[in-house]
Formats: sequence, C-alpha cells, structure tokens
Amino acid sequence: MTKKVMIVGLGLIGGSLALGIRRAHPKIEILGVDRPETLAIATDRGLIDRPSALTEAVSVDVVILAVPITQILVYLRELSALGVRALVTDTGSTKAEIVRLADKLGLNFVGGHPMAGSHKSGVNAADVNLFEHAYFLLTADNELLKDLYSGLGAKFMVVEAQTHDRVMSQVSHFPHLLASALVMQSDGFSSDFPLTKKLSAGGFRDMTRIAASEPAMWASILLSNREAVLSRLADFKAQLTEVESLLAAADSARLTDYLTMSRQARETMEILPGNSANNHLLYISIPDEKGATLRVLALLADISITNVKLNENNREDIHGQLQISFKTRDDLTRAKELIALATNFSVVEG
Amino acid sequence: MTKKVMIVGLGLIGGSLALGIRRAHPKIEILGVDRPETLAIATDRGLIDRPSALTEAVSVDVVILAVPITQILVYLRELSALGVRALVTDTGSTKAEIVRLADKLGLNFVGGHPMAGSHKSGVNAADVNLFEHAYFLLTADNELLKDLYSGLGAKFMVVEAQTHDRVMSQVSHFPHLLASALVMQSDGFSSDFPLTKKLSAGGFRDMTRIAASEPAMWASILLSNREAVLSRLADFKAQLTEVESLLAAADSARLTDYLTMSRQARETMEILPGNSANNHLLYISIPDEKGATLRVLALLADISITNVKLNENNREDIHGQLQISFKTRDDLTRAKELIALATNFSVVEG
Repeated sequence: MTKKVMIVGLGLIGGSLALGIRRAHPKIEILGVDRPETLAIATDRGLIDRPSALTEAVSVDVVILAVPITQILVYLRELSALGVRALVTDTGSTKAEIVRLADKLGLNFVGGHPMAGSHKSGVNAADVNLFEHAYFLLTADNELLKDLYSGLGAKFMVVEAQTHDRVMSQVSHFPHLLASALVMQSDGFSSDFPLTKKLSAGGFRDMTRIAASEPAMWASILLSNREAVLSRLADFKAQLTEVESLLAAADSARLTDYLTMSRQARETMEILPGNSANNHLLYISIPDEKGATLRVLALLADISITNVKLNENNREDIHGQLQISFKTRDDLTRAKELIALATNFSVVEG
Repeated sequence: MTKKVMIVGLGLIGGSLALGIRRAHPKIEILGVDRPETLAIATDRGLIDRPSALTEAVSVDVVILAVPITQILVYLRELSALGVRALVTDTGSTKAEIVRLADKLGLNFVGGHPMAGSHKSGVNAADVNLFEHAYFLLTADNELLKDLYSGLGAKFMVVEAQTHDRVMSQVSHFPHLLASALVMQSDGFSSDFPLTKKLSAGGFRDMTRIAASEPAMWASILLSNREAVLSRLADFKAQLTEVESLLAAADSARLTDYLTMSRQARETMEILPGNSANNHLLYISIPDEKGATLRVLALLADISITNVKLNENNREDIHGQLQISFKTRDDLTRAKELIALATNFSVVEG
C-alpha cells in the first residue's frame, strides 16, 4: 500500500498528478519538492500536504520526478547517492536515456510519459482533468504505479523505452524540428519577399504552432533522443527527394497519387486531440429558432462547460447543430440525461 | 458602371463572391455558368439571377472564373476565342501562369486570389462573410473590380503575379508538400513501429492537417507554381542539413539558440486566421458566479454568435473570461454596446 509520495517539480504536470492522486487516494500523504514560492502555492491549493526536501525520499514509497529531462538525470544520481529504495518514476518526453541511467544506478525505476499538456504552465495551471483519456506511457508494467495514478482517468500503455523514443522521434520530436526549420526558412525568405510575413495563412500557422514552444525544453528533448531524430531527419530528406522528382517531372498523375496516398494515410492514423477538453463533446440538434441555444445552456447552467460552438449558416437541413464540450465525462453524461429529460432534441456524442 | 457579371463556377468561392457582390450592388445582374444541378441551387438561393452559358460572356461587363486552375486556363482560351472584351478575373491560388496566358491571349485580365476558405465546399457552403477581413490579392490595381467586390469586406492588396507565386510557394504551397511528406514518412515508419499510428498527438495533427485537402486541386496548384516550389524544396533541404549539423554535434547552446530564433521569427509573422469567424472576438470579464455567462448570452440572443469559450479553471483572479466570436464586425459592435448598457462587465476586443 502506498502511503507517502514525493513529487519533485510542481508545475503543470507535477501539480496535475498531485490532484489526480488525491482524487483516487485521499489518504496518501503527498510531499512536494520545488522552489519555496511554488511550494507555498502548492500547499495553499492543497496539491501537496507539505513541503519537503529530496533527502526525505529515503522514507517515502514513491518518488515522482516531474521536471525537465536534464534535471531528471541529475535527480536520479542524487536519489541513488541517497540510497533511495522507493519506486522512482518520471514524466519526461524521452525514455531510453533516462531508463538506461536509472538501471545503471540500480534504482527501482519505471519511466512514465503522460501524453497531455496545455499551452499554460506552472503550478497555477494544475488541473485534475489534464490526463483524462490521454495516453500515459509506462516503460514497464507496474501495478503500484497504475493504482497510484488510477484517479487520472488516463489510458495506460506499456512501451519499451527504446521503442518509445523511436515512435516519439517520428510523431513528435522530428516534426518539432521540421516546424522550426520551416519558420527559419520563411524568415530568411522574407528578407527578399517581405510579404512572406504578412501572408502566412491558416495552414502555415497550424504547421508552425509547435515552433512557439519552450526552446530550452525542446533542445533537451531533441538531444536526449538525438540518434532517433537524426535518423528521421536523414530519412525525411530522402522523402523530399522523392517528392522533388515527381514535381520536377511535372507528373500530374503521380503527384496526385502521392497526395491521395498521403491523405489516406493520415485518415488511418489515430489523431489524438491536443488536450482533454475536446474529448467530451455532445452534438445537439436544436430547432432553428430563437432561444433554442439559450434554452439548452440554461438547462446546463450547473454543469461545467468549456466550449460552445453554434450552428453554422447555410445548412441544408432545418436543424441546427449545437456543439458543447464538457470538462469531464461525468458532466457530459449528466448533460445528456438532462437534455433527454427536458427536451425532444436529439443528442449525439462526438 | 458594372451592370452584368458572369460567374463561372458557383462553388464555395464563386457562390460567396456572388453573395458579396449582391450585398453592395443589389442591382447588378449576376449570371451563372456551372452544371445544371448547381445552377438550380444557386438560382434557388438567390446567388445568381439566372443560369447562362459561356457564349453570353460577350455581353457582360465582368467575367469571374471561380474554378480550379486547370479549368481557368481552358476558360481563358475559350473567352479569347469568343472575342470577349469584358474585364476577366479569376480566383486561382497561383497567378503567374494564368496572367501569362491571359496576356498572351490579349484578354482584359486582372488576376485575383481571395485568401479565405473553409473546410466546407460547394454551392451550399456559400457565405457572404467568407472574405471578411481576409486579404484579397489582385495582380493589378483595378477600381472597377475593387468596387464590384466592395461588399466582401476584404482587404485588397496588389501583388505582381511572379511575386505572388514566390511568396505563396513559401507560406502555402511548399508547406503543403512538407505536410504530405511527413504523413508519408510516418506511414512508412509505422510498418516497423505500429504505435506510430496510435500516438500521433496534437502537434502532429496540426502539422499534417493540410495533408487532408483535395489532392487533385493541390497537384494543380503545385504544378502551376512548380519552379518556385522546387526552389523552396531545395532550400529546405539545405535548412535541414544545418539543423542536422547542430544536432549531430550535440551542441545544446546552438540548438537552443536555433529554436529560440525560430520562436522569435514566428512571433514577427502576421499569422492570419484560417477563416473569418475568429476575427470578431470579444473578451468579457464576468463575475465568477452562476448565471453570469447565461446572462450575457441572453442579452445577445438576437445576435449571430459563432463560438463561445467559457472561463478556464484555475484562474488566479476572481473574474472569469468569457470569449465570444461573432459572425460579423457589426454583430460585435452591437454586442459590445449591449453589454456596456446592461452590465458593468468590462469588455475588450480580441
């Protein structure tokens, strides 16, 4: 039975883990290690029971390292030096380098990678629902950890550390570099064609959004998964050379085929939402008359709604689509029941 | 004075242009050329006054070609063969090839490129607000055309055709190819690592969204702007080689610098929204109490709202942010006045 947990790093991830642990295990004592100002807020908000210091790790059951990769590596050495026997886990975006070091140090370690985030950061952004329905990757199966994290509402998946890093190099780390390179190219081009900066439209914005992330954090991720990212980069150059030949040959049929295959391939991917908010979606068919939207919202006045999208113009049918996102699955279920009881509007989950 | 306009192609773009022309010039007669089913809907919805045939182009003042690039090229030849003297314009995503042909044929031609779109298509998706606040690029200054289009609410900008295509190769055409190549690479990689398809998260989704667009249309665009796109592609390979060397050298400081410069460069870009809906945004500070959101929405019951985003959890202040998007600028202005009259909530435009 887990009785005492230490969370090192109480930012968005660490703070949200604390809230999730509390939800399922109100009796577990949670100790926090971070800067004094952060610990004061974390204690105030009830994320942790009390501030602590790393040396106390010798007397806890689980240590969670929710800090950047470079710091995880430092803390692993410190925990080993302290002779810590507790289960140690982390939340880093790469796994191979971390697991390799933990094993070398003889720690009782299981790597973790919760695939959720937010544009917000810091202890004030901690959210008990951050990990709901998100994948939570573990480098080994571990019942103690899955039980500790059972209140997160996450989907656990065991992925061996090397495989984890290879997959992430393709779906996350290399794409990040690609986005940054595209911005740098555009920026250079804009000295010859200043309009470039003015006319960057929707597609460009979407493709480069991740280039706005924290540079130091991403440099660490890329360096921690260097070999895999370099392999993707070399492979991508070959991919570009293939496209180049299609375009250079002005081969319309083969170029169309390429774009068609790409579109189909994208459809077979399980494209995950960026955050949990989109996971609890209801589509409500409302009559096309004034007050219908307001009536639904009044019904749901007590339920935590995160977003409301109203019916679009120029619909072919006579019913409007009202699209409402909820904070939690429970909120969605309650809303569905309420609407069914109070109206004859048809409701579909998104 | 423009009295008669012919629109060839009444899809999303042509249909929306028709509505915008009507808004400013209710007396102009609009003729439509398209398939019979489309013309029937366009007539029904009042987009056009009547169906027509291309031969009637000899007796109109303006011909608008709102069809794919390959068809624009065909129609230009037909209009020339008919001896059309009217002002001819188009809506294609590339301009150099089209302007070159129109000039060669001796047509009275000004190229157009409205930078707006929607995930929806077809005559039923036509929307009078589609172009509001969007850039509408013209290959030459033309008062007649700007007057004709004055009801669109678009921002006109004159860009020489070659420059247009160079800029678009960087901000739109090459990025499209990049997104498709990334999907193809991922798809290939997933045969070795099946998890690749399962774990494509938010960043990957955003980066590859445009790879879901219509393949034939994009093949035409890429081929019509082949030289410029090939030049961007070659340049990008060099850009990747530079990043590769930073990563291969495991140079943390220089890699962080690169990512920082990229982030800063992105901030200097005027990132345009993908559609007009986000352009009319109000932030309303509401008290953190039940019913406050509903009260605002009830006040605005008669105004066309497209999206409502409700206050996020974990705010540090005691006021909630309610974020409401409106269909038009007028709706936003009216909403702002109403809220100011009826409440003491502070309102800021987004």
